[in-house]
Amino acid sequence: MRSTIAVDGFRKLTAMSRATVSQFAGVRDLVKYVPRRALLYIPGSNQKMLDKVPNIKADCVVLELEDGVAMTSKHLARQQVVKSVDRLMTNRHDLKCFELGIRVNSVSSGLIEEDVTELSKAEHLPNAFMVPKVDSSEELAAVFDVFRRHYGAKRVMDTNTRLVIWIESARGMLDMPRILASALNLHKNSGFFKLDAVVFGSDDYCADIGAQRSADGNELVWARQRFVACCKAFQLQAIDAVFIDLKDMGGLKKYSEEGHRWGFTGKQVIHPSQVEIVQNAFMPTAEKVEWATELVHAFSQHESQGKGAFQVLKLESK
Amino acid sequence: MRSTIAVDGFRKLTAMSRATVSQFAGVRDLVKYVPRRALLYIPGSNQKMLDKVPNIKADCVVLELEDGVAMTSKHLARQQVVKSVDRLMTNRHDLKCFELGIRVNSVSSGLIEEDVTELSKAEHLPNAFMVPKVDSSEELAAVFDVFRRHYGAKRVMDTNTRLVIWIESARGMLDMPRILASALNLHKNSGFFKLDAVVFGSDDYCADIGAQRSADGNELVWARQRFVACCKAFQLQAIDAVFIDLKDMGGLKKYSEEGHRWGFTGKQVIHPSQVEIVQNAFMPTAEKVEWATELVHAFSQHESQGKGAFQVLKLESK
Amino acid sequence: MRSTIAVDGFRKLTAMSRATVSQFAGVRDLVKYVPRRALLYIPGSNQKMLDKVPNIKADCVVLELEDGVAMTSKHLARQQVVKSVDRLMTNRHDLKCFELGIRVNSVSSGLIEEDVTELSKAEHLPNAFMVPKVDSSEELAAVFDVFRRHYGAKRVMDTNTRLVIWIESARGMLDMPRILASALNLHKNSGFFKLDAVVFGSDDYCADIGAQRSADGNELVWARQRFVACCKAFQLQAIDAVFIDLKDMGGLKKYSEEGHRWGFTGKQVIHPSQVEIVQNAFMPTAEKVEWATELVHAFSQHESQGKGAFQVLKLESK
Repeated sequence: MRSTIAVDGFRKLTAMSRATVSQFAGVRDLVKYVPRRALLYIPGSNQKMLDKVPNIKADCVVLELEDGVAMTSKHLARQQVVKSVDRLMTNRHDLKCFELGIRVNSVSSGLIEEDVTELSKAEHLPNAFMVPKVDSSEELAAVFDVFRRHYGAKRVMDTNTRLVIWIESARGMLDMPRILASALNLHKNSGFFKLDAVVFGSDDYCADIGAQRSADGNELVWARQRFVACCKAFQLQAIDAVFIDLKDMGGLKKYSEEGHRWGFTGKQVIHPSQVEIVQNAFMPTAEKVEWATELVHAFSQHESQGKGAFQVLKLESK
Repeated sequence: MRSTIAVDGFRKLTAMSRATVSQFAGVRDLVKYVPRRALLYIPGSNQKMLDKVPNIKADCVVLELEDGVAMTSKHLARQQVVKSVDRLMTNRHDLKCFELGIRVNSVSSGLIEEDVTELSKAEHLPNAFMVPKVDSSEELAAVFDVFRRHYGAKRVMDTNTRLVIWIESARGMLDMPRILASALNLHKNSGFFKLDAVVFGSDDYCADIGAQRSADGNELVWARQRFVACCKAFQLQAIDAVFIDLKDMGGLKKYSEEGHRWGFTGKQVIHPSQVEIVQNAFMPTAEKVEWATELVHAFSQHESQGKGAFQVLKLESK
Repeated sequence: MRSTIAVDGFRKLTAMSRATVSQFAGVRDLVKYVPRRALLYIPGSNQKMLDKVPNIKADCVVLELEDGVAMTSKHLARQQVVKSVDRLMTNRHDLKCFELGIRVNSVSSGLIEEDVTELSKAEHLPNAFMVPKVDSSEELAAVFDVFRRHYGAKRVMDTNTRLVIWIESARGMLDMPRILASALNLHKNSGFFKLDAVVFGSDDYCADIGAQRSADGNELVWARQRFVACCKAFQLQAIDAVFIDLKDMGGLKKYSEEGHRWGFTGKQVIHPSQVEIVQNAFMPTAEKVEWATELVHAFSQHESQGKGAFQVLKLESK
């Protein structure tokens, strides 16, 4: 149950995402917020693209071992990603992105053990580990287990490495509240891997339910809106479907803005050319920025007067 | 499991809401049905509006202590509402509304204790108590507890005061079946506060999930349709979102009719000028009225023949 | 948790329904798949229509004792269906349909006991028994019980008679995951009645929630898409709503194609004139057929090389 000092006038702050606050205002307790307006995949098998990572301006860059990498290239990709993460994290401050993550293969693929075995040889940890096709809380427990065995809990804990997961099946969608609750519990019990964002694996979801993606996108209304509600019930970021047509920038803009209006906090992108349109679409509105500014002002005043706890409706964990 | 005497031809009666029956036909067992086609908020801090309540024709009038009242006016509002409810309920038969309710602040606001302390000083009880922002069954238990402590169970039981709650968050929406089941159980165990209607707090819900309300309303398809299904699974009324633009009567009519088609039984209104359009939109269809009339006729015949239990498909509790 | 040999390139096979494989490719383990693109009701009370069954080309023909039969004709319908199923199943190979089913009345109607008592007098079993208005797992247990008592478990087991159920209420829709899980468990424990498909009882659902069906069909977006997700999470076929207007073949085509795009595997039809349009709409796409062909080819190669287990992503049970 949330305990709140209801500050009159601040009620509207419920309309403001935490993103707004930290991006534009810098309130201390919210400073850990990582924006992921655009989440871009870089295939670990593609060295040329790996070399471009430092200049990529997507909020979140994903070094990818799963769907973006052919079965015959998995081994190569692992080795290239290990070298890349060490090189990139050594010069972390030079990167244009807010987060550098690595996506391993799913538990059900049988490939995750080899992925983590290889990745643990890197000297550096990425900002986040990313796990696709999470269908159950049991799979999540297996994810925590494989990382603990290869990295040791202490190493992962020390760096505050975050966790990002993908929901991509009917089963995962139906059990999403249980999966998210178990992710937060696994973190609480283990001390590592704080779940921070959930990504909607739209195309695998469609394949799983036998649906076809269409121009109007009507086939995904239930799934996308349920997805957002589940994420927000657990105070997590919600990352929207990919937009496949690289030539249709108008369509990309339209769907990005729709996603933002529906409550998504960001969107997957499959090419650097999609980044700018997506990041603009997921910028907080001017109204939100104004409120964030007011909040910071009120917070500063509150502090300077030596008052106690300062709480704002809905920004607090329940 | 429902036990039913399947009366041939009466199957279509499943299409008829209980509202139709009681409003137009007067079947005895359904006589307790309170229509809430339009549910109008009157800020407890606004004495001028409180004075107009007797002439307001909205089915349900809500004397409001929560969002409609600024923090600095909470105390004044409580005092004015206490006086108003005593004056209005003393001349209950003069009121144009079917129900006079009082909405207190939420459990999570920390203000409900003071609300109920003050309200219990009134001589009269309203027809219903109304509780916003119910996020969990634990909060509902707290609601029953605070009323029991201040009113005494006997006083609330004797008057059959009803309960109306608001669902306004992602958490509340996901847990809605559990929340509604627990409300009915709390009533069963305590003997007071029969939950009768649930209201969709659309704007706070959008704020909670980070969504923005749009002209097409597409951002709320999942939430509104899930909301209706949850209410109807528990035989409860479902009250639709507010319509903010007071000048757009065409839009109000369109969205009211859509809500009615989708299964909502009524709609929140924020100004008396919205009442008539909304109440007309939520009138049962001519087809439903016809069926209700047939039902009453059949019921009368059944009774006059001295037969036993008369049950109609889906009108019975499961 | 599914265990999979991830075959590179085969990932896209997740997009292929089991229907495609069995219909067009004949993979051994999938050969039991029964297509139900069009599911046609034949009222058991209508002898003239029963006589036409051998020539009906709908994938699935339902000899109907429930909604399509008036209360006063239930007895006649049972007798006619008993005779029809014996005559039709004796010459099973002459039938144009893939499946001949019998739909009994619901548990809640109180009529199912009499239905099954009468049906068990037939010498032949249909390919499937079909049960409407399943609202809870308790009702399903009652269904298994009544069939066991009248048929004996051995008789039903021996013939691999399948089960098809209808979800038609808000309660059933909310509890659908639990209902489907319990159906599969009841089968596992009893050895008979493998649940194979679930049908969305759209019009009774609308009646239950007080909704009205409209031309745009927007009132059912949540229910239909949740329905598909629930079915697919349990690897079951999902059969879409009826289309009432027998004259509007364009509308029928449009809604059938929409259903197919959304993941439904078939659709209910209420007249033989609707069969062809519906079956065409639910044909797998050329892309899916191509993949199915590739799958069969790969499977044959795999076998000829004497390799072990051949598994394909998502086609395996979890």
